[in-house]
Amino acid sequence: MSTTPKIGIAYTSGREHTTALAHAVRDGATDHGADVTVIRVDAITDDGWSALDNADAIVFGSPTYMGTASGAFHAFAESTSERWLRAVWRDKLGAGFTNAACKAGDKHSTLAYFTTLAAQHQMNWVNLGLHPGWHTSTESENDLNRLGYFNGAAATTPADLPADQVHKADIATAEFLGRRVAEHTSIVLAGRIALGL
Amino acid sequence: MSTTPKIGIAYTSGREHTTALAHAVRDGATDHGADVTVIRVDAITDDGWSALDNADAIVFGSPTYMGTASGAFHAFAESTSERWLRAVWRDKLGAGFTNAACKAGDKHSTLAYFTTLAAQHQMNWVNLGLHPGWHTSTESENDLNRLGYFNGAAATTPADLPADQVHKADIATAEFLGRRVAEHTSIVLAGRIALGL
Amino acid sequence: MSTTPKIGIAYTSGREHTTALAHAVRDGATDHGADVTVIRVDAITDDGWSALDNADAIVFGSPTYMGTASGAFHAFAESTSERWLRAVWRDKLGAGFTNAACKAGDKHSTLAYFTTLAAQHQMNWVNLGLHPGWHTSTESENDLNRLGYFNGAAATTPADLPADQVHKADIATAEFLGRRVAEHTSIVLAGRIALGL
Amino acid sequence: MSTTPKIGIAYTSGREHTTALAHAVRDGATDHGADVTVIRVDAITDDGWSALDNADAIVFGSPTYMGTASGAFHAFAESTSERWLRAVWRDKLGAGFTNAACKAGDKHSTLAYFTTLAAQHQMNWVNLGLHPGWHTSTESENDLNRLGYFNGAAATTPADLPADQVHKADIATAEFLGRRVAEHTSIVLAGRIALGL
Repeated sequence: MSTTPKIGIAYTSGREHTTALAHAVRDGATDHGADVTVIRVDAITDDGWSALDNADAIVFGSPTYMGTASGAFHAFAESTSERWLRAVWRDKLGAGFTNAACKAGDKHSTLAYFTTLAAQHQMNWVNLGLHPGWHTSTESENDLNRLGYFNGAAATTPADLPADQVHKADIATAEFLGRRVAEHTSIVLAGRIALGL
Repeated sequence: MSTTPKIGIAYTSGREHTTALAHAVRDGATDHGADVTVIRVDAITDDGWSALDNADAIVFGSPTYMGTASGAFHAFAESTSERWLRAVWRDKLGAGFTNAACKAGDKHSTLAYFTTLAAQHQMNWVNLGLHPGWHTSTESENDLNRLGYFNGAAATTPADLPADQVHKADIATAEFLGRRVAEHTSIVLAGRIALGL
Repeated sequence: MSTTPKIGIAYTSGREHTTALAHAVRDGATDHGADVTVIRVDAITDDGWSALDNADAIVFGSPTYMGTASGAFHAFAESTSERWLRAVWRDKLGAGFTNAACKAGDKHSTLAYFTTLAAQHQMNWVNLGLHPGWHTSTESENDLNRLGYFNGAAATTPADLPADQVHKADIATAEFLGRRVAEHTSIVLAGRIALGL
Repeated sequence: MSTTPKIGIAYTSGREHTTALAHAVRDGATDHGADVTVIRVDAITDDGWSALDNADAIVFGSPTYMGTASGAFHAFAESTSERWLRAVWRDKLGAGFTNAACKAGDKHSTLAYFTTLAAQHQMNWVNLGLHPGWHTSTESENDLNRLGYFNGAAATTPADLPADQVHKADIATAEFLGRRVAEHTSIVLAGRIALGL
């Protein structure tokens, strides 16, 4: 048993903005020493399922479409029901991220759905761990957590901008989440070893 | 312009328990004089889309799987985005129903998602309009709204029972919702005529 | 029976930013011919309760503190339980608004709570009825619904700015909600008269 | 630094049904070796605040009234904002429980609010960790997690029954949550020691 956290990122993306966030979560977690597998769950393979089943933490990601995760993400979520029945993901850690064109709106619904999915799977949840930015007149849109989300990392990319223009502050926020998940997962793994669990 | 409410029921079902609820909503609405079209949105046709576009009210329905509506329902919801852009469903009324094996749990998430979808489409929302049943020691599982939901009709069917054994109280609750939607839609239609809108 | 909508605005405010929104909702509704009573529910009087009981629509408002409405608003909400028991507010229309320093964050939770409170009271719900603004690179913070909320009107005011500096776009969005509630309430009242209800 | 988890239970109760759950959470956590402080937050003292500030995990509890936690709980939650500002509770673990007369209904909203409050405080969240009971025709109301909640422990007590008649299955579910929180907290504490954090 190792204290190197194995993290699976289970996500979908429409026009690759969410992919940019997935890579930022990966980079943040890798910086902290995690072994990260990035999985597009709309085309998940047996290897992808194995990576999720073997992961210590799973980070869910999706664009927010029509007030929730993408249809493709939900098809994936429904297909985890057999794992739910056998409690395969029990006690893993979970976290989440999303992107939308709107500043706010229903990204909260998407992140809240991810927390519900994790709860169903008997996982525990890692929140973002950041104060809000851009919430006084002397702060700016370049702050970490500039939109003020708390249960995950949320980005806003204007609908007409390509994926390489996801805002740097949102990328940095997603990296922060990746580091935090890796750090917390390391602690849990070390604790289980220390207690002989 | 007519005061006969046109109601579309947009739903998916796995093992037909939710179909039983959809039919109950239809029956309740028809009893009140509504013109109801029942549409399985996992196989929606051009006629189905037309029925929804022409409806005065749309009732969303789905089983609750993994803490939300079915993947098939979410695929449908995502596919409404072009209508969202053109605000095709603006000012329609919305309502919702769901079934799950659990007494409670995440049916609330499913119904809350339906309210979010309606809000995105600039629709207004018809809540259930019933006090809870089965919530004192002298009440029973045969009460209307026996589970105590408020933003829609929710049923609980044990996972091993077939669709013809959806509980009579849950069927009656779904019928109640159908009547309420028809009644409220009639009022709105009559009001628009009276005001020359 | 009159088609002049009677609207009660039931709100709390900490540093008067939410008061500015309450006044904007009032102004929008008054412009449409509604008879509006603005009630601070942390100091509600018998006259205030009467105004709410006699209203055709109730608009809930509160700052978002710690991820939900203010403690004072929740004390008010709990104190409506006797009216809940007697279904005094049944079939009224409901709507909501909130302010916070963050762009996004948990304002969605506050608005969603308002929808839950209305559902408990067997009321129906009027959503905002606006597309999002500020969500392409050619749009700006001066747009209506600049944050992209759908189930109510949401404002963001930097924490260090006084109440007279609530953003004009947020004031305009709240006015829009007031007009929409007044309009929809007029329709419902006219419909009830036309149908002899 | 010790691996004995210090757990604070921060709750309110109206007619003591929620107190019975608070004691069950305490008993479950104590069985696992935790040092538990039970705090009625509607009358919180300086000692109570100190216990929460020093706790490794905080379990939130409240009856569900009008679709959310009690007004008294929300007044407490708002009063934590100064701690929020200084991130005093950062990285603590959180969990939650609630009671209502209804089988289901808006208990989900109360538990979801608790998760939001924890996220705001940069805490992480411990879900219930149980499959649902009472969800096939051969299961019964005596099952653990008989109502099928996932993000916390939820009880249903008929409105006319006294606090000593909270259902044994609901008490057992709350005890289970207490043990789970204690176990997970032990792991995190041991991990921090092992990693020298």
